Amino acid sequence: MSEYRQDPLSRRWVIIGCDERATRPNEFIEATSRQSNLTCPFCPGNEAQTPPPVASYSANGKDSWLVRVVPNKYPAVLTDTAPCPTCQPLSLSAASGAMPGFGRHEVIIESRRHVASLSELDDSEAELTFIAYRDRLLELKKDGRYRYVQIFKNAGPAAGASLEHVHSQILALPGVPETIEQELASSAEHFRLHRRPLFLDLIGQEQQAGSRLVTQTERFLAFCPFASRFPYEVWILPRQHQPRFEVLQASELSELSRIVREVIGRIECAVGQVAYNYFLHTLPFDTDLHDHYHWHIEIIPRLVKVAGFEWSTGCFINPYPPESAAAHLRSSLPAAPEAS
Amino acid sequence: MSEYRQDPLSRRWVIIGCDERATRPNEFIEATSRQSNLTCPFCPGNEAQTPPPVASYSANGKDSWLVRVVPNKYPAVLTDTAPCPTCQPLSLSAASGAMPGFGRHEVIIESRRHVASLSELDDSEAELTFIAYRDRLLELKKDGRYRYVQIFKNAGPAAGASLEHVHSQILALPGVPETIEQELASSAEHFRLHRRPLFLDLIGQEQQAGSRLVTQTERFLAFCPFASRFPYEVWILPRQHQPRFEVLQASELSELSRIVREVIGRIECAVGQVAYNYFLHTLPFDTDLHDHYHWHIEIIPRLVKVAGFEWSTGCFINPYPPESAAAHLRSSLPAAPEAS
Repeated sequence: MSEYRQDPLSRRWVIIGCDERATRPNEFIEATSRQSNLTCPFCPGNEAQTPPPVASYSANGKDSWLVRVVPNKYPAVLTDTAPCPTCQPLSLSAASGAMPGFGRHEVIIESRRHVASLSELDDSEAELTFIAYRDRLLELKKDGRYRYVQIFKNAGPAAGASLEHVHSQILALPGVPETIEQELASSAEHFRLHRRPLFLDLIGQEQQAGSRLVTQTERFLAFCPFASRFPYEVWILPRQHQPRFEVLQASELSELSRIVREVIGRIECAVGQVAYNYFLHTLPFDTDLHDHYHWHIEIIPRLVKVAGFEWSTGCFINPYPPESAAAHLRSSLPAAPEAS
Repeated sequence: MSEYRQDPLSRRWVIIGCDERATRPNEFIEATSRQSNLTCPFCPGNEAQTPPPVASYSANGKDSWLVRVVPNKYPAVLTDTAPCPTCQPLSLSAASGAMPGFGRHEVIIESRRHVASLSELDDSEAELTFIAYRDRLLELKKDGRYRYVQIFKNAGPAAGASLEHVHSQILALPGVPETIEQELASSAEHFRLHRRPLFLDLIGQEQQAGSRLVTQTERFLAFCPFASRFPYEVWILPRQHQPRFEVLQASELSELSRIVREVIGRIECAVGQVAYNYFLHTLPFDTDLHDHYHWHIEIIPRLVKVAGFEWSTGCFINPYPPESAAAHLRSSLPAAPEAS
C-alpha cells in the first residue's frame, strides 16, 4: 500500500510506493524505450494487457476505439484505501505525518497508432483526447471523494515516460497540491490588491509586449512565460475568464487541442524530437472562493537537466531567455499533421 | 547579462541566462560526458583553461595543488552587476519582477586525478574539499554583499554535470532561496510550538525508529528521510545543535568528509555508479533569529526521472520506501578508499 508523507522541514508531500523489494533496486535503472507494436500494451490487439477501460471514444459510426481511458496497471495511489475523513493531504497547512495512499490513477491512450508525441495525432484523436480530459474531470468530480484531479503527460524517457505509445495520465487526489495552493494564493492576493484577475493582467501584458507570444487562436493564447524555468517552456491560457477546465464545450476543446498540438509541433520543429511534459492546472472541485483563477496548460520541454542548484534552492537556472525561445518558436512551422 | 525573474503565479524565482543566440538551440541538446585527461580543463597541466584560482590547497610541504577553487568560466550570475540595494531576490515576500543577475559563481576542483565521484577521493582530498567549502563560506560572508551561499555538487550527466572531473559549485546570492526560507519557517514554527529545535527532534525520532538510519559517527548522523523524494535519498546532520556550517573546525570537517564519502560509496555499492546531486543547507549570513536551525547535507541519487506529476503538483512519487533503501544501504559496504 502506498502512503502520503509530509516532510516536516520542507513541508513537501511525497507519495511513497509500496515496493518493499529492497533486494531489487535495479528496477530503477531506466530502461530504454522503443516498444514494438507487438509488445506495446497500448496498441490495438493488446487491449487485454490493460485493465478494462473506464471510457472509450470512436469516430462517428465506427466500432474501433480511437482514444481509450484505462485504470493504471501500476497505480501510485489506490481507491481501495479509506480516504482520511478530514484530509487535505497535499495542503501546506496540514500537520506533518503520513496518510494512506488513497486516490485514483488512470491512463489515457490517445491513438490506435504507435506514435510518441501529441504532435503526431490527427484532428479526431487530438480532439477526443481533450474531450476525454474533460469527461474524466467531470466523472471524478461526481465521485465526491476527490478534491483535485491532476492531468499530465510524460512524453519520452527523459520526461519520465516508461512507455512510448502516446498517452497521458490522470491522478485523482484527496487534497489540493501545494503548487495549486500557491497559485490560488497568488491569484487571490493579486485580486485583492488590484481588483483584476492576475491571469487577465498576464494576458494583457503578454499581448502588449508581444516578444514572448508564440501563437494564438480565437479563444486561446500561447506564450513563453516571463520567468520560464526551462528553455522553450510554453503556457497556454484561455483569453477569457474561465476558472474550471471541465466546463469547456466540444468546440472549445477542439480549438484547444489544435493549439496545444501546434505548439508541441513548433517546439519539435525548433529543437527536434525532444522529451516533454505538459500538465493542466485548474480550480479544485470544492473551491469557489477563487473564481479569479484561470485554468491553464504548462508545457515543459526537457532539454536541460535539473541539477543540484535547483533542487537545493527552488530557484531555476534557465540558460535561454523566453524572448529568444518565443522568437524561435514563432518562426518554426511544423509540417501539416497527417489527415485522419 | 543574466537576470533574476519571479513568476507572479507560482512565486518561483528563475535566473534567466544571457544567451541571446536564438539560432543556436542545439547547445541544449546534452553532450555525452567522458572527457579525456588531455582535454579536461580540471586536470593538471590544463590550469590555464580556467580563470586564476581564488584558493588552492596542497598536502603539507608539497607544491602541487590537491584541491583548487576557481571562478566559473560560464557563470550563471555576475559580480560586475550592481546588487539591488534592497533586494531579497529569492524571497517569497519580494514583489514580482526582475533584477540584475548579481552574484558569484565558483567551482571547486576536488582532485588532481580525473575521477568522477566523491567516493573516489582519498582522505586528504575529501578533507580539503570540505575545508574549502567552509573557507569559501567564510570568505564570501566577509564580502558583505551576499545573503546566502549555495554549495552543491552535480555528479554525472543525469545530475546536470557537464564535466566529469570531480567538482562542486558555489553560488553566492544576494537573497535567501525559497527552499531555505521554508525550512527556516518550519523550524521556527516547530520551536514556537514545542520549544525544541525541529532538527534535534528529527534526530531523536530517527535514532529511536532505527529503520531509516544509514550510518553514524561521533558527531554526524546519516539517514533516509521519512518523506524521501527520491529512492536512496540520504540526509547528513550534525547530532548537536549547530546552525552554521562555517563554524566547523578542521577535525569536524575531516569526520564529515568521511561520512559523506562513505554514504556515497554505499549508494554506489547498492545501485551502481549512479548520477547524484548533493547540497548544503545552512543558516543565511544575516539571520540570527533562527538559531534553532541546523545546517545539513542532502544527497539525491538520480535513479528515477522527475515527471509531469511532480512538476505539476510539487508532490513527488517515490516508488521505493526509505526504510527499504536504508536497509539496503546499511548492508552495502563500499571497498576501502584508495590511500593517499
